[in-house]
Amino acid sequence: MPYVNVRITREGATAEQKVEVIRRMTQVLVDVLGKNPETTVVVIDEVETDNWGIGGVTVTERRRKKA
Amino acid sequence: MPYVNVRITREGATAEQKVEVIRRMTQVLVDVLGKNPETTVVVIDEVETDNWGIGGVTVTERRRKKA
Amino acid sequence: MPYVNVRITREGATAEQKVEVIRRMTQVLVDVLGKNPETTVVVIDEVETDNWGIGGVTVTERRRKKA
Amino acid sequence: MPYVNVRITREGATAEQKVEVIRRMTQVLVDVLGKNPETTVVVIDEVETDNWGIGGVTVTERRRKKA
Amino acid sequence: MPYVNVRITREGATAEQKVEVIRRMTQVLVDVLGKNPETTVVVIDEVETDNWGIGGVTVTERRRKKA
Amino acid sequence: MPYVNVRITREGATAEQKVEVIRRMTQVLVDVLGKNPETTVVVIDEVETDNWGIGGVTVTERRRKKA
Repeated sequence: MPYVNVRITREGATAEQKVEVIRRMTQVLVDVLGKNPETTVVVIDEVETDNWGIGGVTVTERRRKKA
Repeated sequence: MPYVNVRITREGATAEQKVEVIRRMTQVLVDVLGKNPETTVVVIDEVETDNWGIGGVTVTERRRKKA
Repeated sequence: MPYVNVRITREGATAEQKVEVIRRMTQVLVDVLGKNPETTVVVIDEVETDNWGIGGVTVTERRRKKA
Repeated sequence: MPYVNVRITREGATAEQKVEVIRRMTQVLVDVLGKNPETTVVVIDEVETDNWGIGGVTVTERRRKKA
Repeated sequence: MPYVNVRITREGATAEQKVEVIRRMTQVLVDVLGKNPETTVVVIDEVETDNWGIGGVTVTERRRKKA
Repeated sequence: MPYVNVRITREGATAEQKVEVIRRMTQVLVDVLGKNPETTVVVIDEVETDNWGIGGVTVTERRRKKA
């Protein structure tokens, strides 16, 4: 029954990588908390780098400064 | 004042269906809890089937296996 | 498979009212979008009135002014 | 370490405006609660007006009626 | 920079189990997506069984019926 | 109409500080995006330090190591 929401910046995660994140996060809840995987939901949100801020600046700005 | 967030897979819900979900969910909070509809917010998130996992697999995989 | 998160102020909603909100919100998704109720999750968060703001003031302040 | 999620309707907020929202919201948490800005995350979600309801109607309908 | 929100029913997860969920979920994002663990946030919400619905009924009701 | 969710660790934020966070965050959306404050909602979630992880460890562990 757990619900997991994974929020990451949109930077080209592949369908295969998302399959793997979902598979392994579900397994964590089975292994550690004994949750039923059949009713465990994992939702991945991919967010534009213009819309994600850390340290008071967007990831877009942060990448530009590093470049 | 309530805030409702409805998360579904993106599979062609029409504008009319979304109008109906919003209208009826708001009414539930009015009827059952006496909430003021004017300040009740309902936000629908439509999520790609690659990004939604249940039972440890994505909805995309699950549909493929059933087909 | 849908996930619904209902956020309201904590003001004495009874267990019976929560049962009713969950039952009816699930039914909305069955009726309007043909969703499977068995995998539909509804989670209610009750938030202290000190922690909920609207119009730039907390609900606690708002109630006090009205009193 | 705080996490802030700002949800607005998608109506043309510019990259500059988002930079400003992120910068100022982070500053609020530094000023008022003494939080460390370096680990403060602000994520902006822009939601289609068809998917945002208030008062039981979508923002799309509401705009149409006002026009 | 990822943000993970794990929502489970409140049923006695221990501090040690939560440590383990956080450690392993962070590792999934490092292994699969190459994310930086230092800025990866995992927040666990424990929700009363009266407030969690699945299949249109609360977990409290569901447990009672099974008993 | 915006909805802002501020998540922080539960470490004694006072009612006055929460009033101030709500007032100022609402003002950011008015100033930068021209939003209507009357329908702007800000919800603060205070999360136990056992339930908040960063860098793969809980805030509880992190504080203990620093002490």
